[in-house]
Amino acid sequence: MSGNTFGTLFRIMTWGESHGPAVGVVIDGCPAGLRLGEEDIQKELDRRRPGQSEITTPRKEEDKVEILSGIFQGKTTGTPISTMVRNRDVDPGKYESLRSIPRPGHADITYEMKYGFRDWRGGGRSSARETTGRVAAGAIAKKILALYGIEILGHVVELGGIRAGSVSIEDIRKNTEKNPVRCADPDAAVEMAAMIHAVRSEGDSTGGIVEIISTGMPAGIGEPVFEKLGAELAHALMSIGAVKGVEIGAGFKSALMKGSEMNDPIAICDGKLRMLSNKAGGILGGISSGEPVICRIAVKPTPSISKEQHSVDLRIMKDTKIKIQGRHDPSIPPRIVPVAEAMVALVLVDQMMMGGFINRSRINEVRS
Amino acid sequence: MSGNTFGTLFRIMTWGESHGPAVGVVIDGCPAGLRLGEEDIQKELDRRRPGQSEITTPRKEEDKVEILSGIFQGKTTGTPISTMVRNRDVDPGKYESLRSIPRPGHADITYEMKYGFRDWRGGGRSSARETTGRVAAGAIAKKILALYGIEILGHVVELGGIRAGSVSIEDIRKNTEKNPVRCADPDAAVEMAAMIHAVRSEGDSTGGIVEIISTGMPAGIGEPVFEKLGAELAHALMSIGAVKGVEIGAGFKSALMKGSEMNDPIAICDGKLRMLSNKAGGILGGISSGEPVICRIAVKPTPSISKEQHSVDLRIMKDTKIKIQGRHDPSIPPRIVPVAEAMVALVLVDQMMMGGFINRSRINEVRS
Amino acid sequence: MSGNTFGTLFRIMTWGESHGPAVGVVIDGCPAGLRLGEEDIQKELDRRRPGQSEITTPRKEEDKVEILSGIFQGKTTGTPISTMVRNRDVDPGKYESLRSIPRPGHADITYEMKYGFRDWRGGGRSSARETTGRVAAGAIAKKILALYGIEILGHVVELGGIRAGSVSIEDIRKNTEKNPVRCADPDAAVEMAAMIHAVRSEGDSTGGIVEIISTGMPAGIGEPVFEKLGAELAHALMSIGAVKGVEIGAGFKSALMKGSEMNDPIAICDGKLRMLSNKAGGILGGISSGEPVICRIAVKPTPSISKEQHSVDLRIMKDTKIKIQGRHDPSIPPRIVPVAEAMVALVLVDQMMMGGFINRSRINEVRS
Amino acid sequence: MSGNTFGTLFRIMTWGESHGPAVGVVIDGCPAGLRLGEEDIQKELDRRRPGQSEITTPRKEEDKVEILSGIFQGKTTGTPISTMVRNRDVDPGKYESLRSIPRPGHADITYEMKYGFRDWRGGGRSSARETTGRVAAGAIAKKILALYGIEILGHVVELGGIRAGSVSIEDIRKNTEKNPVRCADPDAAVEMAAMIHAVRSEGDSTGGIVEIISTGMPAGIGEPVFEKLGAELAHALMSIGAVKGVEIGAGFKSALMKGSEMNDPIAICDGKLRMLSNKAGGILGGISSGEPVICRIAVKPTPSISKEQHSVDLRIMKDTKIKIQGRHDPSIPPRIVPVAEAMVALVLVDQMMMGGFINRSRINEVRS
Repeated sequence: MSGNTFGTLFRIMTWGESHGPAVGVVIDGCPAGLRLGEEDIQKELDRRRPGQSEITTPRKEEDKVEILSGIFQGKTTGTPISTMVRNRDVDPGKYESLRSIPRPGHADITYEMKYGFRDWRGGGRSSARETTGRVAAGAIAKKILALYGIEILGHVVELGGIRAGSVSIEDIRKNTEKNPVRCADPDAAVEMAAMIHAVRSEGDSTGGIVEIISTGMPAGIGEPVFEKLGAELAHALMSIGAVKGVEIGAGFKSALMKGSEMNDPIAICDGKLRMLSNKAGGILGGISSGEPVICRIAVKPTPSISKEQHSVDLRIMKDTKIKIQGRHDPSIPPRIVPVAEAMVALVLVDQMMMGGFINRSRINEVRS
Repeated sequence: MSGNTFGTLFRIMTWGESHGPAVGVVIDGCPAGLRLGEEDIQKELDRRRPGQSEITTPRKEEDKVEILSGIFQGKTTGTPISTMVRNRDVDPGKYESLRSIPRPGHADITYEMKYGFRDWRGGGRSSARETTGRVAAGAIAKKILALYGIEILGHVVELGGIRAGSVSIEDIRKNTEKNPVRCADPDAAVEMAAMIHAVRSEGDSTGGIVEIISTGMPAGIGEPVFEKLGAELAHALMSIGAVKGVEIGAGFKSALMKGSEMNDPIAICDGKLRMLSNKAGGILGGISSGEPVICRIAVKPTPSISKEQHSVDLRIMKDTKIKIQGRHDPSIPPRIVPVAEAMVALVLVDQMMMGGFINRSRINEVRS
Repeated sequence: MSGNTFGTLFRIMTWGESHGPAVGVVIDGCPAGLRLGEEDIQKELDRRRPGQSEITTPRKEEDKVEILSGIFQGKTTGTPISTMVRNRDVDPGKYESLRSIPRPGHADITYEMKYGFRDWRGGGRSSARETTGRVAAGAIAKKILALYGIEILGHVVELGGIRAGSVSIEDIRKNTEKNPVRCADPDAAVEMAAMIHAVRSEGDSTGGIVEIISTGMPAGIGEPVFEKLGAELAHALMSIGAVKGVEIGAGFKSALMKGSEMNDPIAICDGKLRMLSNKAGGILGGISSGEPVICRIAVKPTPSISKEQHSVDLRIMKDTKIKIQGRHDPSIPPRIVPVAEAMVALVLVDQMMMGGFINRSRINEVRS
Repeated sequence: MSGNTFGTLFRIMTWGESHGPAVGVVIDGCPAGLRLGEEDIQKELDRRRPGQSEITTPRKEEDKVEILSGIFQGKTTGTPISTMVRNRDVDPGKYESLRSIPRPGHADITYEMKYGFRDWRGGGRSSARETTGRVAAGAIAKKILALYGIEILGHVVELGGIRAGSVSIEDIRKNTEKNPVRCADPDAAVEMAAMIHAVRSEGDSTGGIVEIISTGMPAGIGEPVFEKLGAELAHALMSIGAVKGVEIGAGFKSALMKGSEMNDPIAICDGKLRMLSNKAGGILGGISSGEPVICRIAVKPTPSISKEQHSVDLRIMKDTKIKIQGRHDPSIPPRIVPVAEAMVALVLVDQMMMGGFINRSRINEVRS
């Protein structure tokens, strides 16, 4: 396997399996001089953590982060930052019966096909626990972006067929973290929570759509042609386990539009070049226009369900049935929000470094 | 600008502007021993070429490819293959009036913001002519994939709100190239062509959706975590100019599904591990399952329209109106099909090399 | 800082500072199915460890490795392997007086110039402790190479002006690890050890030359032009702290030769293509010829010496004098041997994967 | 073959064979706004060109460069710059007899082993003509560096055993281009030229040493650990065909020194931090110190000699003898000077972009 590295100038490498001793990440490329402590990372991990509310998996993971390098006297030194979270609530016993039966919708079967040998405990490397490293690195990326006035806001816009009403950026800031589904429309949030309870009681699961908005964007971020900002974001977001679609701005709706509807008019507002609408989602020709960057991702329903499913026993190469027991989120979107935000943050910091927007050696703003 | 390179082991670098002397690509990483001539590349360029039918731009570009390196005695030598297409029908005159007025929906404004200086003739580097290099490289990638039994089939599934009916892979093979819209449903193709004529006569344009299916896929292609096959495909496809969304398999529809609907049952068919449905689009955990890989892209309407639009004169920083004259495709999907196929082919060859499926030094099958 | 990543397909990222909690490495790209335990890594770390003999620094580091991921049931799973060594014997007190006085010949001054802020305890990131990660990763690379019949042998060929006599590969195998200077010529080894004692008693240090021979090489490894095998080896070896020169085969002596002396005659021996001499050092045109690959590195004397030196107090920007106290190796070559071997091993595995010599998904030879 | 790409942010891809239609390079990552014309590139190509003096190969190549993209109104636009040189004096006839007999010291045998099929005309891709692309790209890199006050000076310091006397930077600037051997010591230059005539008349060839000094260096360039400035330079220089060794500063001499001799004292001179000597060659811990960066390369004798040599006829797999006829430089160092300068320039621009010393989007200094 390769591909555990992400980014060019702000580069991370994640490691760890669901039921191994720990999961972690090394972040290479953080400038010197950024004030950083475990609490900065912990607060984002707490948003991703299992067991944070009644609608998520009851797996109890405290997910306490340890920083092992890269910080001296409370500030980054420019050297790699290594962080680690110990796996505590690990009981592989319940996976024992599934050792040779791949779970439909999971990576079990393809890992088996590719590697011929896999850590079957809790999905091993393909477990969602791998995303702790993304979130930890994203916390640092967000802290850097905040120095440049950029904020990344994720929220659930659809879940189990229930759509949130139209919300403002202020609504997202204010409401999203107040309900367990992370929906900025409080009424829809209640319905979504009810939907989650309903599918769980059926032994089933449901999907949804998450939107990630980046505000305060400077114009000029992104490299045209193959490293278009939208292409990098699509790569980053589609690399998250359950994501099956990514769109920017009007996205799939643009396929139904006429040019006269889709094109954002250009105008001067308060002396600055602006677009009068934002169907482009803040990106033209792969480069940020200064308008908010808007991405949406389609999140498939959790593949682990307790309903009976068809599969195969690989030891004897015979058809069989399985029912997956254990603790699973009946719907992924609420907990994918911090992961998606992290991926967007990683892309933005990397592309801002690429374009010379961020000094890669030192962050002067926070130097004492 | 960086980002004109794509791929890791099968790597291309494209160059050239719409109204410069030529556009081209260098392909680094093609194994030795592949029979290759200009005709292999030309046939794909002819599918992308402007002026190929009455529904595309009447810009007359013969787009004759020249191979400048990498071939000896009709076979690749393993060294870089440099190909070039001269720009012939270049008349920058008609762009003169738009020098300082960015066209809405185009990269003009963001290039201006980023570089402060740009080749304003026909969009310069951000012109769709840049895709000739992608198609030329993709032609070579497709030829390699064909040796491994992989075929890549693109077709238009929606245009201007008209949806193609359900089609089989055989329908796509048989029908797509027979109509100018590249739709595998002949009835929908007629309606789509009429729609294109209608929007053109209004001075407007329309978007659509293109599907790309890769058949004959071996299981095990793709690297988990950040280089998931779906993530690489999303990157590749979203890097094409007008693409605003990418989905794999059930894509955005998966957001509405329950787990019991979305999960593809696993079974043994004719002694082989198979999925009984393909909502995953042939990818689980970032690795190909052996089922066809299915991607869909949302293509926005052509931004160049002759209707009056709001913009700004950058010289005097004042609001103004523009009408874009000149020769433009009223709908991009038919001509984006070979470009999208090329991007998928480039990803598959690179990932197959990554995974050791293709010998990177020599292609033995075709050695004489 | 970036640059803590090495390799393309077999890729490592190292982290950690001399006086932080730990130093470590993540290895991405090891195939599944390799039998691997902590003992495989520990034995190489023990060769690098300080305090292993009377001629090295008396810093007492047990350097006990922990594997945190990537192994299941005693075999690699293909996922990243994260290893870590805790820093135990850390007493930053003795560096306190040098906080603002850069040590000549060290990276103190350039880190200060670049980052404006640094972990001054024991050199921080620029400490030789960073090489533990290289050695740990190299241990895995060596184990893979051994499956392909490749052995990497480092030995000291010159130290403090004392040259080892001519030695055979068998001498290197047999003698090198039997003396603390790692010299394959036992007589020279005695003289070198005496030289080390002499310079230490003067409060000074001395340099030397290390040779690394890779035997059992298949022909065809290396990518021509910019990724020539020799260029990759030069990069790898020159990235080790104290190395100031790298040569391949006849190296700098080739500058004095005539073509008729330098060219290795080609002949058929026992039915195989061979070179009758090996002045090329096993590499022609950047590609391995099948002969042993021979590299030599020039290692500068340890910059930490107790003699008085000129430097500057950065707080007051005034000239000053320093004497460096503390525990330092008076000569680096003996302990650089396992580090140089590791770097060569990392390059060979990566280039063998590049060239398709090693299956990147599974190592079949050792699968149970 | 991969490996035809060099650099991360200032990235080039070279292509072309000795006897194909052309050789060229694409440069991706040049900022917008640099004044650039073919004459800037031509003047460096003329220094590399065969037939420039009586001591080089009489192959007559005008080596006229064409720029195919990336320039508009005399300035770079930030898009890829594609340049090409047609191969004119190509007569493969004289290579016909060597088709199946690999020339000792050349890449013929290893290409054959790796690819099984090769363009045998004039060495194909492994010909020194490949370096035209390096020199063309280097010309652009040098022009960028000059804006930052950095000058790169190559000169021959040893040839056929004749050593140049000690020279100042001013001597190098003034004398090097005045004699065909590019030696800054005029007396040694005469002796070296005589040596070249002597070896040529014997049907033999000779090697030498070239030094490349970069002056005007800012402190802080280079990324520690694996991308140390010295490691990047070693990679770059060792990737040139005939180079068998690279050293920085005192290089191999440092192996003979004591720490008290090798360490450069640090002092304040005219209010600035300086080193009182430069045995480190301007690099400490992988980062530039502000002192001139000094590299030396060992260049092997030209492998093409007319003396009889042992080789093998691959068709019949039998030992044979060969004498190489044709036009060859009897000594490579004089013509390798501009190539080595180009490689150093490419590394410096890339590393300066990495470290944020150069704005990657726009060069403001030269914007009109």
